[in-house]
Amino acid sequence: MSIKVRNIKLTFEYDGTDFFGYQRQREGRTVQGELEKALSVITDRAVTVYSAGRTDTGVHALGQVANFHTESGLAIDRMMKGLNSILPGDIAIKRIEIVPDDFHARFSARSRRYEYFIDPRPLRSVFNRRFALHVPYSIDSEAIRKACRYLPGEKDFSSFRCSHDASDHSVRRIIEAGIDVRGEVLALFFEGSSFLQHMVRIIVGTLLSVGRGRMTAEMFSEVIDAKDRRVAGPTAPPHGLYLTRVRYSDN
Amino acid sequence: MSIKVRNIKLTFEYDGTDFFGYQRQREGRTVQGELEKALSVITDRAVTVYSAGRTDTGVHALGQVANFHTESGLAIDRMMKGLNSILPGDIAIKRIEIVPDDFHARFSARSRRYEYFIDPRPLRSVFNRRFALHVPYSIDSEAIRKACRYLPGEKDFSSFRCSHDASDHSVRRIIEAGIDVRGEVLALFFEGSSFLQHMVRIIVGTLLSVGRGRMTAEMFSEVIDAKDRRVAGPTAPPHGLYLTRVRYSDN
Repeated sequence: MSIKVRNIKLTFEYDGTDFFGYQRQREGRTVQGELEKALSVITDRAVTVYSAGRTDTGVHALGQVANFHTESGLAIDRMMKGLNSILPGDIAIKRIEIVPDDFHARFSARSRRYEYFIDPRPLRSVFNRRFALHVPYSIDSEAIRKACRYLPGEKDFSSFRCSHDASDHSVRRIIEAGIDVRGEVLALFFEGSSFLQHMVRIIVGTLLSVGRGRMTAEMFSEVIDAKDRRVAGPTAPPHGLYLTRVRYSDN
Repeated sequence: MSIKVRNIKLTFEYDGTDFFGYQRQREGRTVQGELEKALSVITDRAVTVYSAGRTDTGVHALGQVANFHTESGLAIDRMMKGLNSILPGDIAIKRIEIVPDDFHARFSARSRRYEYFIDPRPLRSVFNRRFALHVPYSIDSEAIRKACRYLPGEKDFSSFRCSHDASDHSVRRIIEAGIDVRGEVLALFFEGSSFLQHMVRIIVGTLLSVGRGRMTAEMFSEVIDAKDRRVAGPTAPPHGLYLTRVRYSDN
């Protein structure tokens, strides 16, 4: 008798505020750690998950993706209900699917989309304080839109690479970048094949200089070309950032 | 030389999640306690504030009002900036005004408005978990609207009075009650001269029975008439409730 192993894909959201980052650690509460703990209870086996992106401490997700292999025969809709009932309030499964054996949440991903929320109202909002960056100055969203046009393409993004990034090289492909006005909040969005560590947050920190008139869109393009972290802006704080979507060939 | 004493009105919001209620206590972090501490620093004198409503533990405010008297000559716009810079992230001043000596945030108030947010989507949202009640069933908002029509008027609301309410009597005047659909969230609203302790939350708990079809609007009106707490529904949890506005004769 052979045991059927299924490969299961999870799409989920989390509020990053109270986690010490994404990746499982010996100590400290992490998203991966909580997810694996809940999966192990539900499937009655030790579970390891593979994730599309390892978000920094304090970063949120609306559409993070992970997969895991299990011998458990539990129906997936019951698995999802069970997971959502035992997961802590700051993680929630949004979709569960059986996928082909060779699907890998990280290596099969074609692109990741991040959004960064900015609240530019004069007074800080207590309800947004964990979910958007409050900037008490007006933002020229048209200038940011212009600057974002320089981002798409396959480029060496060394200017937006933090000093402890461990990648082999700094070439990444950005597919789309721009800004949406959503009511009183601004959403910067970035879709790319993958991103260097802190890359989105350093881009946002630099775009904020453009938005408040301290840098022109042309100067922003020179920052990209310089391939030098020192000419870019500061790293924007994590609490405005969301991993919103991961694309695979099949969707 | 006489010292000028000014009466100052504050309109402010707070996220009630991390407070042990509103009213100052010897121990435990409270909204009033944090506000008085910040005011004492800014005005360099001990300050006592009078507030329009003392919200329960876990209840939020978008438009709470308080007043205090001070000999401090600090310009009020500077006072507001100073307060917002030293208050914790979960309290924010939205407006500051000099008011006549006889203005009292509690006794001058003509009405208070409360709103209760309900998230009826099948999946719980991690971002709403502290700010709206998640109910994983569909809600008949038309039935709730019908039931709300029985609330306005000066009535004995004993059915919605919690056992440890200390008021002299249970007669209160409700001016308006209803339901708004706001995107995917429902907002129940109640405006009244004042409310008994837990009154809004018990009304909401009872209206939820109407919304899920366990009670008709007519049965809801019988609950009001019964003047008996035992026939009403359970007390809805505090985290969906907001004090949104306090009206005075001058606005």
